[in-house]
Amino acid sequence: MFESPNYLRDDCLTIECVVSLTNGRRLTEATPLPRIEVPPPDITEHFAKLLEIEEGVDVTFSVGGVMFKAHKMVLAARSPVFRAELYGPMREEGRKAIVIEDVQPDVFRAFLHFIYSDSLPPLDDLSADDYGEMIRHLLVAADRYAMERLKLMCQSILCESLDVQTVATTLALADQHHCHKLKDACIEFMTNMMDTVVATQGYKNLKRTCPSVAFEALEKTKRIRKA
Amino acid sequence: MFESPNYLRDDCLTIECVVSLTNGRRLTEATPLPRIEVPPPDITEHFAKLLEIEEGVDVTFSVGGVMFKAHKMVLAARSPVFRAELYGPMREEGRKAIVIEDVQPDVFRAFLHFIYSDSLPPLDDLSADDYGEMIRHLLVAADRYAMERLKLMCQSILCESLDVQTVATTLALADQHHCHKLKDACIEFMTNMMDTVVATQGYKNLKRTCPSVAFEALEKTKRIRKA
Repeated sequence: MFESPNYLRDDCLTIECVVSLTNGRRLTEATPLPRIEVPPPDITEHFAKLLEIEEGVDVTFSVGGVMFKAHKMVLAARSPVFRAELYGPMREEGRKAIVIEDVQPDVFRAFLHFIYSDSLPPLDDLSADDYGEMIRHLLVAADRYAMERLKLMCQSILCESLDVQTVATTLALADQHHCHKLKDACIEFMTNMMDTVVATQGYKNLKRTCPSVAFEALEKTKRIRKA
Repeated sequence: MFESPNYLRDDCLTIECVVSLTNGRRLTEATPLPRIEVPPPDITEHFAKLLEIEEGVDVTFSVGGVMFKAHKMVLAARSPVFRAELYGPMREEGRKAIVIEDVQPDVFRAFLHFIYSDSLPPLDDLSADDYGEMIRHLLVAADRYAMERLKLMCQSILCESLDVQTVATTLALADQHHCHKLKDACIEFMTNMMDTVVATQGYKNLKRTCPSVAFEALEKTKRIRKA
Protein backbone atom coordinates (compact mmCIF):
# COMPACT_ATOMS: atom_id res chain seq x y z
CA MET A 1 0.00 0.00 0.00
CA PHE A 2 1.36 3.42 -0.95
CA GLU A 3 0.58 5.95 1.77
CA SER A 4 1.21 8.92 -0.43
CA PRO A 5 -0.66 9.19 -3.72
CA ASN A 6 2.11 11.36 -5.25
CA TYR A 7 3.79 8.39 -6.92
CA LEU A 8 0.63 7.19 -8.63
CA ARG A 9 -1.03 8.49 -11.78
CA ASP A 10 -4.26 6.75 -12.81
CA ASP A 11 -3.40 4.13 -10.19
CA CYS A 12 -0.22 3.23 -12.07
CA LEU A 13 3.37 3.41 -10.90
CA THR A 14 5.90 4.09 -13.64
CA ILE A 15 9.48 3.07 -12.94
CA GLU A 16 12.27 4.41 -15.10
CA CYS A 17 15.27 2.11 -15.47
CA VAL A 18 18.56 3.33 -16.91
CA VAL A 19 20.47 0.41 -18.38
CA SER A 20 24.17 0.97 -19.02
CA LEU A 21 26.16 -1.29 -21.29
CA THR A 22 29.90 -1.43 -20.89
CA ASN A 23 32.17 -2.57 -23.62
CA GLY A 24 35.29 -3.09 -21.54
CA ARG A 25 35.48 -6.85 -21.62
CA ARG A 26 37.18 -8.65 -24.46
CA LEU A 27 35.13 -11.74 -25.11
CA THR A 28 36.17 -14.56 -27.32
CA GLU A 29 33.19 -16.19 -28.97
CA ALA A 30 34.14 -19.63 -27.75
CA THR A 31 34.98 -18.87 -24.14
CA PRO A 32 33.11 -16.24 -22.16
CA LEU A 33 35.52 -15.78 -19.25
CA PRO A 34 34.33 -15.98 -15.68
CA ARG A 35 34.03 -12.69 -13.84
CA ILE A 36 35.97 -12.32 -10.62
CA GLU A 37 33.71 -10.57 -8.14
CA VAL A 38 35.16 -7.76 -6.05
CA PRO A 39 33.60 -7.46 -2.58
CA PRO A 40 32.21 -4.07 -1.49
CA PRO A 41 34.54 -1.48 0.11
CA ASP A 42 35.65 -2.48 3.62
CA ILE A 43 37.68 0.54 4.70
CA THR A 44 35.17 1.61 7.35
CA GLU A 45 35.15 -1.89 8.89
CA HIS A 46 38.92 -1.72 9.07
CA PHE A 47 38.91 1.57 10.97
CA ALA A 48 36.09 0.46 13.27
CA LYS A 49 38.09 -2.67 14.07
CA LEU A 50 41.14 -0.63 15.03
CA LEU A 51 39.00 1.48 17.35
CA GLU A 52 37.58 -1.67 18.91
CA ILE A 53 40.98 -3.24 19.62
CA GLU A 54 42.48 0.17 20.57
CA GLU A 55 45.57 -0.42 18.40
CA GLY A 56 47.65 2.72 17.94
CA VAL A 57 45.28 4.96 19.93
CA ASP A 58 46.97 8.23 20.87
CA VAL A 59 44.30 10.36 22.52
CA THR A 60 41.92 9.83 25.45
CA PHE A 61 38.65 11.62 26.12
CA SER A 62 36.92 11.81 29.47
CA VAL A 63 33.17 12.06 28.90
CA GLY A 64 30.89 12.09 31.92
CA GLY A 65 33.44 10.03 33.84
CA VAL A 66 33.86 7.43 31.06
CA MET A 67 37.18 7.19 29.20
CA PHE A 68 37.27 6.80 25.40
CA LYS A 69 40.45 6.14 23.45
CA ALA A 70 40.81 7.14 19.81
CA HIS A 71 43.23 8.05 17.03
CA LYS A 72 44.01 11.76 16.61
CA MET A 73 44.50 11.25 12.91
CA VAL A 74 41.00 9.86 12.37
CA LEU A 75 39.37 12.62 14.40
CA ALA A 76 41.36 15.26 12.54
CA ALA A 77 40.49 13.72 9.18
CA ARG A 78 36.78 13.82 9.97
CA SER A 79 36.30 17.08 11.85
CA PRO A 80 37.98 20.44 11.20
CA VAL A 81 37.31 21.31 14.85
CA PHE A 82 39.17 18.24 16.09
CA ARG A 83 41.91 19.00 13.55
CA ALA A 84 42.42 22.47 15.01
CA GLU A 85 42.26 21.15 18.58
CA LEU A 86 44.64 18.23 18.00
CA TYR A 87 47.12 19.55 15.42
CA GLY A 88 46.63 23.32 15.44
CA PRO A 89 48.77 25.89 17.29
CA MET A 90 46.41 25.79 20.31
CA ARG A 91 46.72 22.03 20.77
CA GLU A 92 47.38 20.70 24.24
CA GLU A 93 50.38 18.42 24.35
CA GLY A 94 50.80 15.70 26.89
CA ARG A 95 49.10 12.55 28.01
CA LYS A 96 46.18 14.07 29.88
CA ALA A 97 42.67 13.04 28.88
CA ILE A 98 40.69 15.69 27.03
CA VAL A 99 37.54 16.44 28.99
CA ILE A 100 34.36 16.79 26.93
CA GLU A 101 31.64 18.71 28.76
CA ASP A 102 27.87 18.53 28.20
CA VAL A 103 27.91 15.26 26.27
CA GLN A 104 26.63 11.96 27.63
CA PRO A 105 28.89 8.90 27.30
CA ASP A 106 26.35 7.00 25.16
CA VAL A 107 26.11 9.93 22.76
CA PHE A 108 29.91 10.24 22.53
CA ARG A 109 30.15 6.48 21.86
CA ALA A 110 27.69 6.78 18.95
CA PHE A 111 29.51 9.92 17.78
CA LEU A 112 32.86 8.08 17.72
CA HIS A 113 31.20 5.22 15.84
CA PHE A 114 30.05 7.64 13.17
CA ILE A 115 33.48 9.28 12.96
CA TYR A 116 35.13 5.91 12.27
CA SER A 117 32.46 4.29 10.11
CA ASP A 118 30.42 7.08 8.46
CA SER A 119 27.26 5.42 9.76
CA LEU A 120 25.21 5.43 12.93
CA PRO A 121 25.56 2.44 15.25
CA PRO A 122 22.56 0.11 15.59
CA LEU A 123 20.33 1.91 18.08
CA ASP A 124 17.56 -0.71 18.07
CA ASP A 125 17.65 -1.16 21.82
CA LEU A 126 16.45 2.40 22.40
CA SER A 127 12.79 3.27 22.82
CA ALA A 128 11.37 5.66 20.22
CA ASP A 129 11.70 8.54 22.71
CA ASP A 130 15.29 7.70 23.63
CA TYR A 131 16.16 7.26 19.95
CA GLY A 132 14.82 10.73 19.14
CA GLU A 133 16.73 12.12 22.12
CA MET A 134 19.94 10.41 20.95
CA ILE A 135 19.57 11.84 17.44
CA ARG A 136 18.98 15.34 18.83
CA HIS A 137 22.13 15.06 20.97
CA LEU A 138 24.12 13.76 18.00
CA LEU A 139 22.95 16.74 15.97
CA VAL A 140 24.33 19.05 18.68
CA ALA A 141 27.68 17.18 18.66
CA ALA A 142 27.79 17.23 14.86
CA ASP A 143 27.25 20.98 14.85
CA ARG A 144 29.89 21.53 17.55
CA TYR A 145 32.51 19.51 15.64
CA ALA A 146 31.46 20.74 12.17
CA MET A 147 30.56 17.31 10.86
CA GLU A 148 28.15 18.29 8.12
CA ARG A 149 27.12 14.84 6.92
CA LEU A 150 26.22 13.63 10.42
CA LYS A 151 24.31 16.86 10.98
CA LEU A 152 22.30 16.30 7.78
CA MET A 153 21.73 12.65 8.70
CA CYS A 154 20.30 13.68 12.09
CA GLN A 155 18.16 16.37 10.48
CA SER A 156 16.85 13.84 7.97
CA ILE A 157 15.89 11.36 10.70
CA LEU A 158 14.25 14.04 12.84
CA CYS A 159 12.38 15.38 9.82
CA GLU A 160 11.00 11.94 9.00
CA SER A 161 9.80 11.31 12.53
CA LEU A 162 8.23 14.61 13.49
CA ASP A 163 5.36 14.24 15.93
CA VAL A 164 3.18 16.44 18.06
CA GLN A 165 5.04 15.74 21.30
CA THR A 166 8.54 16.61 20.09
CA VAL A 167 8.09 19.04 17.19
CA ALA A 168 8.54 22.14 19.34
CA THR A 169 11.70 20.73 20.95
CA THR A 170 13.07 19.84 17.52
CA LEU A 171 12.18 23.30 16.24
CA ALA A 172 14.12 24.95 19.08
CA LEU A 173 17.09 22.70 18.30
CA ALA A 174 16.89 23.43 14.57
CA ASP A 175 16.81 27.16 15.35
CA GLN A 176 19.82 27.02 17.69
CA HIS A 177 21.92 24.93 15.31
CA HIS A 178 21.05 26.65 12.03
CA CYS A 179 19.23 23.71 10.42
CA HIS A 180 17.09 25.64 7.98
CA LYS A 181 15.32 22.79 6.20
CA LEU A 182 14.48 21.03 9.44
CA LYS A 183 13.23 24.30 10.88
CA ASP A 184 10.95 24.85 7.89
CA ALA A 185 9.61 21.30 8.19
CA CYS A 186 8.95 21.79 11.92
CA ILE A 187 7.13 25.08 11.36
CA GLU A 188 4.98 23.53 8.65
CA PHE A 189 4.14 20.53 10.83
CA MET A 190 3.47 22.70 13.87
CA THR A 191 1.22 25.20 12.16
CA ASN A 192 -0.88 22.32 10.85
CA MET A 193 -1.23 20.75 14.28
CA MET A 194 -1.28 23.93 16.36
CA ASP A 195 -4.23 22.95 18.56
CA THR A 196 -2.44 19.92 19.98
CA VAL A 197 1.13 21.22 19.87
CA VAL A 198 0.37 24.20 22.14
CA ALA A 199 -0.37 21.81 25.01
CA THR A 200 3.11 20.22 24.97
CA GLN A 201 5.97 21.06 27.31
CA GLY A 202 8.24 21.49 24.28
CA TYR A 203 6.01 24.31 23.04
CA LYS A 204 6.16 26.07 26.41
CA ASN A 205 9.95 25.81 26.35
CA LEU A 206 10.02 27.07 22.77
CA LYS A 207 8.07 30.21 23.71
CA ARG A 208 10.64 30.89 26.38
CA THR A 209 13.87 30.06 24.52
CA CYS A 210 13.13 30.92 20.89
CA PRO A 211 10.43 33.59 20.82
CA SER A 212 11.58 34.78 17.40
CA VAL A 213 10.49 31.61 15.62
CA ALA A 214 6.87 32.57 16.29
CA PHE A 215 7.23 35.39 13.78
CA GLU A 216 8.79 33.10 11.23
CA ALA A 217 5.96 30.62 11.74
CA LEU A 218 3.37 33.37 11.39
CA GLU A 219 4.92 34.65 8.18
CA LYS A 220 5.14 31.16 6.78
CA THR A 221 1.50 30.45 7.65
CA LYS A 222 0.51 33.59 5.82
CA ARG A 223 2.38 32.40 2.72
CA ILE A 224 0.78 28.96 2.95
CA ARG A 225 -2.73 30.45 3.24
CA LYS A 226 -2.10 32.78 0.30
CA ALA A 227 -0.86 29.92 -1.88
CA MET B 1 24.76 -3.83 -29.35
CA PHE B 2 25.18 -6.72 -26.93
CA GLU B 3 28.38 -8.59 -27.62
CA SER B 4 27.30 -11.66 -25.74
CA PRO B 5 23.99 -13.27 -26.72
CA ASN B 6 23.57 -14.78 -23.24
CA TYR B 7 21.36 -11.93 -22.03
CA LEU B 8 18.96 -12.18 -24.93
CA ARG B 9 16.12 -14.61 -25.47
CA ASP B 10 14.16 -14.22 -28.73
CA ASP B 11 16.01 -10.92 -29.16
CA CYS B 12 14.43 -9.60 -25.94
CA LEU B 13 16.12 -8.39 -22.76
CA THR B 14 14.10 -8.90 -19.59
CA ILE B 15 14.99 -6.68 -16.63
CA GLU B 16 13.75 -7.60 -13.17
CA CYS B 17 13.20 -4.68 -10.83
CA VAL B 18 12.73 -5.16 -7.11
CA VAL B 19 10.75 -2.25 -5.65
CA SER B 20 10.92 -1.84 -1.88
CA LEU B 21 8.40 0.24 0.02
CA THR B 22 9.32 1.59 3.40
CA ASN B 23 6.78 2.63 5.94
CA GLY B 24 9.08 4.61 8.21
CA ARG B 25 7.78 8.08 7.58
CA ARG B 26 4.83 9.45 9.48
CA LEU B 27 2.84 11.45 6.99
CA THR B 28 0.04 13.74 7.80
CA GLU B 29 -2.54 13.75 5.06
CA ALA B 30 -2.44 17.51 4.69
CA THR B 31 1.33 18.10 4.68
CA PRO B 32 3.75 15.67 3.12
CA LEU B 33 6.99 16.84 4.77
CA PRO B 34 10.06 17.64 2.71
CA ARG B 35 12.83 15.05 2.81
CA ILE B 36 16.26 16.22 3.88
CA GLU B 37 18.77 14.57 1.60
CA VAL B 38 21.88 13.05 3.15
CA PRO B 39 24.96 13.19 0.91
CA PRO B 40 26.88 9.96 0.20
CA PRO B 41 29.60 8.81 2.64
CA ASP B 42 32.70 11.02 2.52
CA ILE B 43 35.06 9.24 4.92
CA THR B 44 37.48 8.15 2.19
CA GLU B 45 37.72 11.71 0.86
CA HIS B 46 38.56 12.85 4.37
CA PHE B 47 41.40 10.37 4.74
CA ALA B 48 42.73 11.06 1.24
CA LYS B 49 42.75 14.77 2.07
CA LEU B 50 44.81 14.16 5.21
CA LEU B 51 47.33 12.16 3.18
CA GLU B 52 47.50 14.97 0.64
CA ILE B 53 48.20 17.70 3.20
CA GLU B 54 50.45 15.36 5.25
CA GLU B 55 48.74 16.34 8.51
CA GLY B 56 49.69 14.07 11.41
CA VAL B 57 51.88 11.77 9.29
CA ASP B 58 54.11 9.62 11.49
CA VAL B 59 55.93 7.24 9.15
CA THR B 60 58.09 7.69 6.05
CA PHE B 61 58.77 5.14 3.31
CA SER B 62 61.66 5.28 0.90
CA VAL B 63 60.62 3.65 -2.36
CA GLY B 64 63.08 3.66 -5.25
CA GLY B 65 64.58 6.89 -3.93
CA VAL B 66 61.21 8.64 -3.52
CA MET B 67 59.93 9.48 -0.02
CA PHE B 68 56.28 8.86 0.91
CA LYS B 69 54.76 10.01 4.21
CA ALA B 70 51.78 8.27 5.73
CA HIS B 71 49.87 7.53 8.94
CA LYS B 72 50.82 4.34 10.76
CA MET B 73 47.28 3.98 12.02
CA VAL B 74 45.77 3.93 8.52
CA LEU B 75 48.31 1.41 7.23
CA ALA B 76 47.76 -0.82 10.26
CA ALA B 77 43.97 -0.60 9.89
CA ARG B 78 44.16 -1.71 6.28
CA SER B 79 46.90 -4.33 6.22
CA PRO B 80 47.67 -6.98 8.84
CA VAL B 81 51.25 -7.04 7.53
CA PHE B 82 51.69 -3.30 8.12
CA ARG B 83 50.02 -3.76 11.52
CA ALA B 84 52.60 -6.34 12.55
CA GLU B 85 55.46 -4.26 11.13
CA LEU B 86 54.35 -0.99 12.71
CA TYR B 87 52.77 -2.06 16.02
CA GLY B 88 53.98 -5.62 16.57
CA PRO B 89 56.89 -6.74 18.77
CA MET B 90 59.28 -6.65 15.79
CA ARG B 91 58.52 -2.99 14.97
CA GLU B 92 61.40 -0.66 14.35
CA GLU B 93 61.23 2.46 16.50
CA GLY B 94 62.80 5.74 15.52
CA ARG B 95 62.52 8.31 12.81
CA LYS B 96 64.29 6.47 10.02
CA ALA B 97 62.45 5.95 6.74
CA ILE B 98 61.29 2.39 6.08
CA VAL B 99 62.85 1.18 2.85
CA ILE B 100 60.53 -0.75 0.51
CA GLU B 101 62.43 -2.91 -1.96
CA ASP B 102 61.25 -4.18 -5.35
CA VAL B 103 58.38 -1.70 -5.72
CA GLN B 104 58.36 1.22 -8.15
CA PRO B 105 57.41 4.66 -6.79
CA ASP B 106 54.39 4.96 -9.12
CA VAL B 107 53.08 1.61 -7.93
CA PHE B 108 53.57 2.55 -4.26
CA ARG B 109 51.76 5.85 -4.88
CA ALA B 110 48.76 3.99 -6.34
CA PHE B 111 48.98 1.45 -3.52
CA LEU B 112 48.85 4.22 -0.88
CA HIS B 113 45.91 5.77 -2.72
CA PHE B 114 44.03 2.48 -2.45
CA ILE B 115 44.92 2.12 1.24
CA TYR B 116 43.44 5.52 2.04
CA SER B 117 40.46 5.53 -0.32
CA ASP B 118 39.52 1.89 -1.05
CA SER B 119 39.68 2.67 -4.76
CA LEU B 120 42.31 2.82 -7.48
CA PRO B 121 43.54 6.25 -8.56
CA PRO B 122 42.62 7.45 -12.05
CA LEU B 123 45.18 5.73 -14.28
CA ASP B 124 43.87 7.17 -17.55
CA ASP B 125 47.24 8.59 -18.54
CA LEU B 126 48.75 5.12 -18.85
CA SER B 127 48.83 3.20 -22.14
CA ALA B 128 46.97 -0.13 -22.15
CA ASP B 129 50.28 -1.98 -21.70
CA ASP B 130 51.43 0.22 -18.83
CA TYR B 131 48.00 -0.05 -17.20
CA GLY B 132 48.17 -3.86 -17.28
CA GLU B 133 51.71 -3.67 -15.89
CA MET B 134 50.57 -1.36 -13.07
CA ILE B 135 47.70 -3.71 -12.15
CA ARG B 136 50.05 -6.72 -12.10
CA HIS B 137 52.45 -4.84 -9.80
CA LEU B 138 49.58 -3.77 -7.56
CA LEU B 139 48.49 -7.41 -7.32
CA VAL B 140 51.97 -8.32 -6.10
CA ALA B 141 51.89 -5.52 -3.50
CA ALA B 142 48.38 -6.51 -2.41
CA ASP B 143 49.52 -10.09 -1.89
CA ARG B 144 52.62 -9.01 0.03
CA TYR B 145 50.61 -6.80 2.41
CA ALA B 146 47.62 -9.17 2.62
CA MET B 147 45.14 -6.71 1.20
CA GLU B 148 42.51 -9.11 -0.07
CA ARG B 149 40.10 -6.65 -1.64
CA LEU B 150 42.80 -4.94 -3.70
CA LYS B 151 44.07 -8.36 -4.75
CA LEU B 152 40.59 -9.34 -5.97
CA MET B 153 40.17 -6.00 -7.71
CA CYS B 154 43.44 -6.52 -9.62
CA GLN B 155 42.46 -10.10 -10.48
CA SER B 156 39.09 -8.91 -11.74
CA ILE B 157 40.68 -6.26 -13.98
CA LEU B 158 43.29 -8.69 -15.33
CA CYS B 159 40.61 -11.31 -15.94
CA GLU B 160 38.51 -8.88 -17.95
CA SER B 161 41.40 -7.78 -20.13
CA LEU B 162 43.13 -11.07 -20.95
CA ASP B 163 44.80 -11.04 -24.33
CA VAL B 164 47.16 -13.23 -26.32
CA GLN B 165 50.25 -11.14 -25.60
CA THR B 166 49.96 -11.05 -21.81
CA VAL B 167 47.97 -14.15 -20.82
CA ALA B 168 51.08 -16.26 -20.11
CA THR B 169 52.61 -13.49 -17.97
CA THR B 170 49.35 -13.11 -16.07
CA LEU B 171 49.15 -16.88 -15.63
CA ALA B 172 52.63 -17.00 -14.10
CA LEU B 173 51.66 -14.16 -11.76
CA ALA B 174 48.39 -15.87 -10.78
CA ASP B 175 50.32 -19.05 -10.06
CA GLN B 176 52.93 -17.31 -7.89
CA HIS B 177 50.38 -15.34 -5.89
CA HIS B 178 47.74 -18.04 -5.41
CA CYS B 179 45.00 -16.40 -7.48
CA HIS B 180 42.99 -19.51 -8.33
CA LYS B 181 40.12 -17.98 -10.28
CA LEU B 182 42.43 -15.82 -12.37
CA LYS B 183 44.64 -18.83 -13.02
CA ASP B 184 41.67 -20.88 -14.24
CA ALA B 185 40.59 -18.02 -16.49
CA CYS B 186 44.13 -17.72 -17.93
CA ILE B 187 44.37 -21.46 -18.59
CA GLU B 188 40.99 -21.49 -20.31
CA PHE B 189 41.91 -18.48 -22.45
CA MET B 190 45.35 -19.87 -23.27
CA THR B 191 44.21 -23.35 -24.26
CA ASN B 192 41.70 -21.79 -26.65
CA MET B 193 44.33 -19.58 -28.26
CA MET B 194 47.31 -21.93 -27.99
CA ASP B 195 48.54 -21.46 -31.56
CA THR B 196 49.18 -17.75 -31.08
CA VAL B 197 50.08 -17.77 -27.38
CA VAL B 198 53.05 -20.13 -27.87
CA ALA B 199 54.81 -17.47 -29.94
CA THR B 200 54.82 -14.88 -27.13
CA GLN B 201 57.74 -14.04 -24.86
CA GLY B 202 55.45 -14.48 -21.84
CA TYR B 203 54.83 -18.10 -22.82
CA LYS B 204 58.58 -18.77 -23.07
CA ASN B 205 59.06 -17.26 -19.61
CA LEU B 206 56.14 -19.31 -18.30
CA LYS B 207 57.73 -22.56 -19.48
CA ARG B 208 60.87 -21.63 -17.59
CA THR B 209 59.37 -20.25 -14.35
CA CYS B 210 56.15 -22.24 -13.85
CA PRO B 211 56.53 -25.59 -15.63
CA SER B 212 53.92 -27.18 -13.35
CA VAL B 213 51.05 -25.12 -14.77
CA ALA B 214 51.41 -27.02 -18.06
CA PHE B 215 50.03 -30.13 -16.33
CA GLU B 216 47.17 -28.16 -14.84
CA ALA B 217 46.38 -26.75 -18.26
CA LEU B 218 46.52 -30.20 -19.83
CA GLU B 219 44.20 -31.68 -17.23
CA LYS B 220 41.81 -28.80 -17.61
CA THR B 221 41.81 -29.12 -21.41
CA LYS B 222 40.94 -32.80 -21.02
CA ARG B 223 37.99 -31.88 -18.82
CA ILE B 224 36.84 -29.25 -21.29
CA ARG B 225 37.02 -31.71 -24.20
CA LYS B 226 35.15 -34.35 -22.24
CA ALA B 227 32.38 -31.93 -21.31
